[in-house]
Amino acid sequence: MRTIEWNPEINAVRIIDQTLLPAEYKVIDCTTLEELAGAIRMLKVRGAPALGAAGAYGIALAAHTYDGKNMDGLVSHLNASADVLRSIRPTAVNLFYGINRTLKKALHGSSVDDVRSLALSEAEKLADEDVQLNRRIGDAGAELLNDGDTIMTHCNAGRLACVDWGTALGVVRSAVAQGKKINVIACETRPLNQGGRIPTWELMEDKIPVKLIADNMSAHVMSRGMVDCMIVGADRITRDAVFNKIGTHTHAVVAARYGVPFYAAAPVSTFDLEHTASEITIEERDGDELRFMKDMQIAPRGVEVFNPAFDITPLELVSAIITEKGILRAPYEESFKEYFGVRVGFSPP
Amino acid sequence: MRTIEWNPEINAVRIIDQTLLPAEYKVIDCTTLEELAGAIRMLKVRGAPALGAAGAYGIALAAHTYDGKNMDGLVSHLNASADVLRSIRPTAVNLFYGINRTLKKALHGSSVDDVRSLALSEAEKLADEDVQLNRRIGDAGAELLNDGDTIMTHCNAGRLACVDWGTALGVVRSAVAQGKKINVIACETRPLNQGGRIPTWELMEDKIPVKLIADNMSAHVMSRGMVDCMIVGADRITRDAVFNKIGTHTHAVVAARYGVPFYAAAPVSTFDLEHTASEITIEERDGDELRFMKDMQIAPRGVEVFNPAFDITPLELVSAIITEKGILRAPYEESFKEYFGVRVGFSPP
Repeated sequence: MRTIEWNPEINAVRIIDQTLLPAEYKVIDCTTLEELAGAIRMLKVRGAPALGAAGAYGIALAAHTYDGKNMDGLVSHLNASADVLRSIRPTAVNLFYGINRTLKKALHGSSVDDVRSLALSEAEKLADEDVQLNRRIGDAGAELLNDGDTIMTHCNAGRLACVDWGTALGVVRSAVAQGKKINVIACETRPLNQGGRIPTWELMEDKIPVKLIADNMSAHVMSRGMVDCMIVGADRITRDAVFNKIGTHTHAVVAARYGVPFYAAAPVSTFDLEHTASEITIEERDGDELRFMKDMQIAPRGVEVFNPAFDITPLELVSAIITEKGILRAPYEESFKEYFGVRVGFSPP
Repeated sequence: MRTIEWNPEINAVRIIDQTLLPAEYKVIDCTTLEELAGAIRMLKVRGAPALGAAGAYGIALAAHTYDGKNMDGLVSHLNASADVLRSIRPTAVNLFYGINRTLKKALHGSSVDDVRSLALSEAEKLADEDVQLNRRIGDAGAELLNDGDTIMTHCNAGRLACVDWGTALGVVRSAVAQGKKINVIACETRPLNQGGRIPTWELMEDKIPVKLIADNMSAHVMSRGMVDCMIVGADRITRDAVFNKIGTHTHAVVAARYGVPFYAAAPVSTFDLEHTASEITIEERDGDELRFMKDMQIAPRGVEVFNPAFDITPLELVSAIITEKGILRAPYEESFKEYFGVRVGFSPP
């Protein structure tokens, strides 16, 4: 199955629970907005493109669970539901994109049934588009990889971060599909260990060789020539920086020092060229993520913790951005103009 | 109590079990060399200077547990015990130093009792010297810290890494003793989380403000001006590099990029100027350290893992080395000559 899809039998959003991987593979049906919101909050569904689909299906779910017949009530209900969904991951621009696009389409409906049908078909369309986008991103990026290369990645930008195929790992999958032999080094990605749990699991399923390291081993492996390039996903790309899982910025600094090309792979919907990095709020998560591993205490109970979910990699550290429209390189201001036909300061359509 | 000391009542080496902190404070008496070797292997006692004392007390323990009366047999037994101890942590030069110094002294003895007494008094002397050394390192380094500074550290180079006081945290303790207000950011230090468990515990006991972060947050905090300087310990300093806990090199690269002074604090016994970095073997530890957190599975069972225990920070990334003889700065070749009176290529006496 895809990472996220609509279950038409019970009108639910069906997801793979990524918090249980790799020990357990479990599928969950979210039949209420609260269940879906909880799943997003607990990172059961995560990854920028998958969150876009989660936002879209969330609006479809809100329309289906509305128990009135009145259109005004439905509109209020959808707007309130959109607010709930947006508030969960304020840094994730794809979530906003999925919500806004589906909401806008749905509000063209002239009856409750019509709104439901429009919302669902828009969400399905967005999910299908995401799979196609990922294939195009993968195919574009695969040209950057040579037979025998070792790619380092951080967090998971694989198929489970998307609807299918993956962005950063989509590039790896496309290169492998072209017949290239590719090895992957996956960084553990503290504090929630998405990198230790998910790309490792995905790649082992696909029989692509993968080796796990701790995040802090970055300089050790890069300085010894063990990495040909680094590819990460992105949660938001402003006109000066890539926002991605905390740790990305550290790897990018190390990559720059040791001459390792550093790529971000992301769909155009990730771009937010209206903003610069300093205007974006970084989500801070509960300190217990560093004090406990599930129920196991791993630091003093009362210790103060700083736990930002994302960091900000300046574009000067990014060798290229791989998108479904092609590969953008510095000077980025000109690339943005060339690829999106917009002046910096305006988001692509 | 000290981190490691002799228990004269039962002729045992008494240590604080650091693997149980911060959840439990437990003292262990090692009455056989095998128990002590196991404790070193399991990192129950760890940290370069503490390992020096462990090596020294290990020889004393070997002498006390020898059950013969024959001097030739004792000499063979001590040499074999020294080999066992050396083999446990091949990168830890202080362990070798403690073993060799105590062994040499003990072998001057003319009877079994004499050897025991010489070995123990040499081990006690080494432990006392370590406390004095740490005070001198701390006092030297404290001059580099200003009132109100925030110091970032990695792993634990606190009192539990030494016999007492600490090296990197000894600098912090000395600065605090001088009346300066100092804040510490402790990096978790995957995969064994020494940084999350030990400096946090030590500093909270001493009421010095400490904040825990994941190792990968290095660039995020340094780029935002949250760190005034970084201080780490060292396991070995060759004439071109600092060997320290894996992750140190990554932080040093980030510190260099963001103009954060990067200091190593270590006693002169840590220097190994006979060697360059490429000649030293890096200990690789069991991959299960990244696949499991104690008994909890955190990555796929069969995933390949790369788990070096140390990394190699080139001296060009090190702003200064804080020793009991003073502060060494680049050009290091000249500093080594000035401080140790030896040509590069020869270890200090």
